[in-house]
This record gives sequence, structure tokens and C-alpha cells, in this order.
Amino acid sequence: MSRIRCPILSTKVVTAQQAVTHIQSGDRVGMSGFTGAGYPKKVPGALAERAKEAHGRNEDFGIDLWTGASTAPELDGVLAEAGVLRRRLPFQSDPALRRAINSGLTEYVDTHLSHSAQQAWFGFYGPLNVAVVEVSAILPNGLLVPSSSVGNSKTWLDLADIVILEVNKWHPRAYEGFHDVYYGTRLPPGRRPLQLLDPLQRIGDPYLRVDPHKVVAVVETNAPDRNLPFKDSDDGSRAMADHVVDFLRHEVSHNRLPENLLPLQSGVGNVANAVMKNLTHSEFEGLTAYTEVIQDGMLDLIDAGKLSAVSATSFSLSAERAAHFNQHIESYKGRILLRAQEISNHPEIIRRLGIIAINGMVEADIYGNVNSTHVMGSTIINGIGGSGDFARNAFLNFFVSPSTAKHGVISAIVPFASHVDHTEHDTHVLVTEQGVADLRGLSPTARARKVIHRCAHPAYRDRLQDYFDRAVAAHPHGQHTPHLLREALSWHEHFQEHGQM
Amino acid sequence: MSRIRCPILSTKVVTAQQAVTHIQSGDRVGMSGFTGAGYPKKVPGALAERAKEAHGRNEDFGIDLWTGASTAPELDGVLAEAGVLRRRLPFQSDPALRRAINSGLTEYVDTHLSHSAQQAWFGFYGPLNVAVVEVSAILPNGLLVPSSSVGNSKTWLDLADIVILEVNKWHPRAYEGFHDVYYGTRLPPGRRPLQLLDPLQRIGDPYLRVDPHKVVAVVETNAPDRNLPFKDSDDGSRAMADHVVDFLRHEVSHNRLPENLLPLQSGVGNVANAVMKNLTHSEFEGLTAYTEVIQDGMLDLIDAGKLSAVSATSFSLSAERAAHFNQHIESYKGRILLRAQEISNHPEIIRRLGIIAINGMVEADIYGNVNSTHVMGSTIINGIGGSGDFARNAFLNFFVSPSTAKHGVISAIVPFASHVDHTEHDTHVLVTEQGVADLRGLSPTARARKVIHRCAHPAYRDRLQDYFDRAVAAHPHGQHTPHLLREALSWHEHFQEHGQM
Repeated sequence: MSRIRCPILSTKVVTAQQAVTHIQSGDRVGMSGFTGAGYPKKVPGALAERAKEAHGRNEDFGIDLWTGASTAPELDGVLAEAGVLRRRLPFQSDPALRRAINSGLTEYVDTHLSHSAQQAWFGFYGPLNVAVVEVSAILPNGLLVPSSSVGNSKTWLDLADIVILEVNKWHPRAYEGFHDVYYGTRLPPGRRPLQLLDPLQRIGDPYLRVDPHKVVAVVETNAPDRNLPFKDSDDGSRAMADHVVDFLRHEVSHNRLPENLLPLQSGVGNVANAVMKNLTHSEFEGLTAYTEVIQDGMLDLIDAGKLSAVSATSFSLSAERAAHFNQHIESYKGRILLRAQEISNHPEIIRRLGIIAINGMVEADIYGNVNSTHVMGSTIINGIGGSGDFARNAFLNFFVSPSTAKHGVISAIVPFASHVDHTEHDTHVLVTEQGVADLRGLSPTARARKVIHRCAHPAYRDRLQDYFDRAVAAHPHGQHTPHLLREALSWHEHFQEHGQM
Repeated sequence: MSRIRCPILSTKVVTAQQAVTHIQSGDRVGMSGFTGAGYPKKVPGALAERAKEAHGRNEDFGIDLWTGASTAPELDGVLAEAGVLRRRLPFQSDPALRRAINSGLTEYVDTHLSHSAQQAWFGFYGPLNVAVVEVSAILPNGLLVPSSSVGNSKTWLDLADIVILEVNKWHPRAYEGFHDVYYGTRLPPGRRPLQLLDPLQRIGDPYLRVDPHKVVAVVETNAPDRNLPFKDSDDGSRAMADHVVDFLRHEVSHNRLPENLLPLQSGVGNVANAVMKNLTHSEFEGLTAYTEVIQDGMLDLIDAGKLSAVSATSFSLSAERAAHFNQHIESYKGRILLRAQEISNHPEIIRRLGIIAINGMVEADIYGNVNSTHVMGSTIINGIGGSGDFARNAFLNFFVSPSTAKHGVISAIVPFASHVDHTEHDTHVLVTEQGVADLRGLSPTARARKVIHRCAHPAYRDRLQDYFDRAVAAHPHGQHTPHLLREALSWHEHFQEHGQM
């Protein structure tokens, strides 16, 4: 049976090549997609071809691209390689796009993921010309069944002048019922409280809405999501996961957390998967998650009967796990809800529910300032994503990283962060494979002693302690956050000049 | 008529010297007080005397002190000078205490003001032994009428093992009706939405509650609040206020703000007062405020009929304005509500109402990272206060500073912030007397060009541009946030060594 059941919209089926004739150079284009799930599969490639042809004729062709978060080679990759992306927000993780940003070809506006939809509504980014949104089906009445992510699709569909839909039948038709799209958003001063009290509560519709008259093209696809290869946890990830879970156990034993914890959020990556795996084999029961992304480990936790409810905005699964999920999708219904990212990452909900937030970091300084985005101050890796939304508003937050990178030549614990994404006011617990530093309620100097002692790699510990001791000695009237400014960034300089810190 | 009408509590009236016998060395003590308003006037001094006597006998005597925010010489001042304060949170601005922190005698935990109450409830700071809270009256049934601030008083009264009350009849008896104390707070997972939709809406009680059996002492006082001397705006403040108000006008004309704006928040200081003064003489009508602190300028704006509703947690008035307010207090009733700081600064409410946040800064770097707390990296001035609560969650935020300090030897715009309290992801508009840099929706390099051109002082502009140009040239693969790490903090180093940047 066709996935396009709406009489009006079924007349608009065209090829991707035909669809992209509606996108003009200079347009602001909002596309679906979050962590490699639910992004359009064909239109971006056709757009890249169109742009390359224009470039071949020595014509300018560039757009501003807004998405949910990171996408895939078939979207960010092809458009970056074709030199189409002038400005990009709110998050990316694509190698080709990263090169374009770091070589100055693309302007990147690295934005809190909960802020992107509202700032578009506020008019901070200018008007949106085109939305390109993947869905899994179109109902007879024109309602859209989203696919493997919601992200900012609701906002792009509402704001754009014209809409291109991709209907991807690779996604199970049974995605209907997995989404909760809140249509109560307003501009201030008309906003109302979000009446969401637990992770699985519905406050919206299972469907995206679109004005059919704005839809200029519908493209049929049958293509898989990006699907990150799953890497088995290494010793370091397992050690960090042990530290996190032991810390949670410790908090429960001191009555600072309930026995079934509080809703979990975890960033994307190996450590997150390792934490989930560790919880799968733990004594914890009746867990819930209120997070951005559902990775393999979280599905395993559901399968193990440990995790009863997951709210997110997207999946990010390995190929094997995606195939398994698609085959057994019905058995997950009622345990998983995908929401718009302005809700999955909303400060109001994160603070109310009391989230336990676990996110990776690039480096932390001895006082607890965390860099999540940059290498050596200048070069962006991915972006802040939702880590700021969750960390700031969490009941308890963890920032996690191996204590060294690149086989030991870089220390993740440094005297002075070369870029700050989470300030000393926001970080609760730092974790490396070496151990855990609980920074809650501590002054900066008390934090420094703990971070150096508990988290730094032994190869760097003495040098960090020496920096700290000399900074303390140098500033008799600057004992709150003592720094030697001449040396503060010298570890990073030394790496740039000599290939090691 | 006595201000202490409760039969049980009236039997507990003692001197401050008797009251402080209930406070032991090692205690965690929560006191009322926010920006020099509503703090206990006598007990801290008596405690300082008790500690000095103990010190004279070579006995240890120290406490952890928690308040709402900054207090006054009679509280932070005397306790810091007596060497009583081991640990202090969540904010301070006292010269003697600042010296104690910066000389390493007091550990200071500089905390988002909306986080302090909940983190105390979460158990992150340990149990609270004693609460010392100023009120303006005790009703026959034991309910407490707060005075000129609410701050964290509700939380300290709830959490503390024992309570000492100060009843200060300097405050008008007519304070009854000016407060809204929300008693619906819960620990996760039991939290509910805050059903607050506009600045003047009541969601709580006009009174603080206390278990009378926990009250060990009631002390009578008749003493004024701190009362900051009012300084007339200088040219720089007036220029910055003009820039802010012109920017608001511009946003209204582009339909990004309603004609009566959105609720205002402004930090403490001359620029805030100048903005209020400017608004007083502007075309704007029907303004509201949802803020932390009510300064002189905001009362003037009420008197001018421009400001119809103010929610805050505290006053911070000049002596003249406080006298005027106390005399005419009835005429402000129904236009002003004081709330607990966890509500006045709550991310949920700030984001919902769409606050326009105006806060001072110490410095900003060219990419928009803002330092609100430290001088030259090591030395703390006051603290982050509520600036993070408001800036992160605001509809629109301004960070404001003169472009230079200390008669021009320090630039407020620097290559690299020597401390980061608000990250590049959080800052919208930077303002100096030189001009306005609107950073919304811009990449870091586009921000840098604007900040240098619009906000830097001409004496530093070329050097900033030169730093930026050379950083761009030095990093062909680091064009997102180009920095010269060896020079990044060199302006601050140069100031430390040569007395000028």
C-alpha cells in the first residue's frame, strides 16, 4: 500500500531533481534530521548536483541550512563537498562539513539545541524559505507520520514558505504512535506551562501538520538512516561507566537519589553505551530516560526489562540494532516517545524531572570549566548540542572523558580550558578512567585538588599539581581561582608546536 | 503595637548575645538577605563577637554561611573580619569578605542564584543547622511577614534544625501583602509545573512559615537596610542606556518585540538605573519587570506610570529612596511582588515569560564569551549571581560595560576572556558606550568583526583587529574560532606586569 494516502499530496510526487528546482540560491532551508536519523535522503544530493551545475556555469549557489542536529554524508556531506553551505546551524558532526567550517567556507552557528526552534520563531535567523522533511507516511487527511527523529521538523514545517516532503518507506509503517509533537508552543508573552510530568506522558499529537498548499513536492525514497557502526566498549569506557554507576549507587545509599534513580540523559558515544550496558547488569530497576538520542545501549536496557520509559527526539542506532528495531518495532510501542527537540531538551522539563545528565567532553580545566567543542582553542569538532541544556538544568550532571587523547600526548585535564562551553558554575561531577571528582558545593581551589588527584592521568598529575601550587603561591590576593596567565594555555601551545602537551 | 503577636514566639524574645549561644562552631548557618536587604542586623555582629572571644581563647570558631545573595557590612563584613566564615555561598559583594576569599581564608562557592535553594534541598551542601531570618512581623498564628527581601529564607526556615528570627520594626508594618512565597516546591520526581503566567500573578502565600518549636530565639531590632548610595548616571552609563533602549526600539520596529516590550530584568548598578531613567522618558508604556532586584530607577518608572508590574526577590535602594518607599509603601501595593529567588530566577519562568535581560560584565572576548566575575583570571569580584539564570533563558540578553576600565588602562574587550561565566552560545547583544554588537545568529568570526568594530574602545580597536587578523592567518584549518594561544592572555599578563593592557 502506498505511504502517500492524501489525495492532494499524492498529486505532487516528483523526482528529487524536480523537487530541488524549488530551492533557490540564497534560500534559508530547514531540513529534518537529528544524529543521522530522519533526514531527507535524496533531495540534498539532488540539490548538491544542481549547485555544482550552477558553479560549473560560474554562478553563485549557496544556502543557509538549518536542521535538528547532525545528519549524514547524504546531507551535510554532499552539500559541504559541493560548497553549497554558507551558514549552518544548530549542530553538525560531518567530516566534510567540519572541514568546510574550519577552513572558513561555511559559517557555523553552534547553538543550544533547545534554543534553535524558538530563536527561529523569534526571527533571530531571518525568514525560512524552504522546509525539506522526511516522514514515514502521509495519512489521507494530510497528517504526517514522522520517521526516526522529530528534531526541529515541526518548526520548519510551520515557518517555511514552501515545503518538500520525502516519504521514506525504509522506515516501518508502524512508526505511527511513536511520536508526541507538542502544538502548544507560543511566542512570549503568550506562553503557557508545559504540563509534562513524566517521560512517557503525551502532551501533543502523534503527527506533524503541514498546510498542503505549501507543499510543492513529494519525493519517494527507500533508504536507510546513517547508522553508526557500533564499537564494543574498550577498557577505558568500561572503567568510566563503572565510575558513573558506582557514583549513582553511592548517591542512592546517601538518600540523595531514589532507588530507581531519576530520568537518565546520555550523550552519544561509547561511554554512554557502556553506562547503559553497566546498568543492564546492575541491581537498578524501573529506570526511565528523558534524553535526546536513543542508542543501542538504551534499547538493550529496555529489552532487559530495566528501562520502562524513554523520551527522546531521535534514534542513533547501529545497522544491526536498527534492523532489529524495525523488525520488532511493535514491541517498543508505548515505551518510547520521540518529541520535538525544543521539548526533549527544554530547561523547564529537564529541571522539573530532575534529570541525571551524562555527557562527553574534550577537556576540563582544574577548576571545572569544560570544553565540549574545540581542539586547541581554534578548531571546532562538532558542537555543544544538547549538553548545555541538560547539564545546566540537570539534578546531577557528569562530564566524561578518557584522561588522555591521541595515545597520551594530550591531557584531558588542563590548567586552563582552551574553550569553555560549560562553566565552573555548571559542572557537578567529572569522570575519567582514573576516577571521579565530585565538585558539588566546592570552591574552585577545592575542586582543583580533587580534579588533579582523582581525574588526571598519572603522567600529567604532578605537572598539574605543580601549576596549581605555583599559581597559589603567585597570587596572595588572588586565591579564589589562582592562574599563571603566562602558562595557562602553554600546554596547548606546546602541543601545537611539538605534538605533545 | 508589638510586631510579635504569636504567644509561643513572644516568649522566646532574647538578646542577640543570648541568641548566638545556639550557634556552634562548625555549623552550617543559613541567613536571610539579598543585595543588602532583609538580612539580620544584630545576630551576625553578636556571632562575630562570640567568635572573637573564642579565638581569643585560641579556640576554633568558624561556620559555613549560606544566604540569598550579597548582604551588608553588619553581616558579611563583621563575620569576615572576625574570621568566622569557612565557606560561603551563593553570592557576596562585601569588601572584607572579598579580601577573605581572595586571600584564601574563606572558600566561596559561586552559584547560580536559582540553583542554591534546590541544591541545598538535594543535599549537595550537607545539612543546615541554623537559620537566621529577618522578618517585619510575626502574626498571632506564627506566620511570618518577610521584610525587604525573600531570597532563600523559605528554604532555610524549612531545612534548618533550629531557627533564630529577627523582627525589625524599621520596616513598615505594611509589608504584609508584598510577598508571594511558593510552597509547592518538591524534590524530583514529584515536581509540578509552576503555573505562573505573568509577573504579578500570585502562586503562593504572603507569609513565610516556620515550625514554632524549631524557633530557639527571637531578637527585636530597629535598623535600616544597607542602602547603596545613589550615583547620578555618568556620560558612559547614559550612552549605554541609549544604546539599549534604541536597540529595543529597533526590535519593536522589526516586529520582534511587542510595543510594550517583554518583562525586563536588570542587574544592579548605574547602567541599570540609567536604562530605567531612559525608559522613564521614552515612548514605551505598560512595561513590566520580572527581575531579581528593585533599584531606585525601577520605582521611578512605576511613579512615572510606565511600569505596571514588578516581580523581584529583593530591593536595593538608596537611603532617600528607601525612606520614600517606606513612607508611601501602600501606594506600591499591588504593583510589586517579592518572591523566593528560586522563583524570581527560575529558568522555567524566565523562558516562558520571555525576559529581556540586561546585565553588567567585566569583560567580553571578541567571540562573545563573557566574564562577569574575575579580574585577570584569578581574583573574584562578586559572583555570577542571577546573570546566568537570566541570560541563558532570556528572550533577549544584553551584556553591558564601559569599553575601558581604570581610566583606560584596561580594555573590556579582549582577545580571550580570562574567565568565562557566559559562553559564546549564550550571549546575544554586547553594549559599551561605543556601540552595540548584535551577535544573534552569527558565527564566531562574524561576531568578532562586529565586537571589535562596534564595542571596542578606539584605543584598543586596531590591536584587537590585528590579533584577529593574525589568528585567522595562522590557522588555515582552525577558522571557526581562530586564536593565537601564545598571545591570547597576553593583554592580561601585560596589565599584571606593567599596569596597563
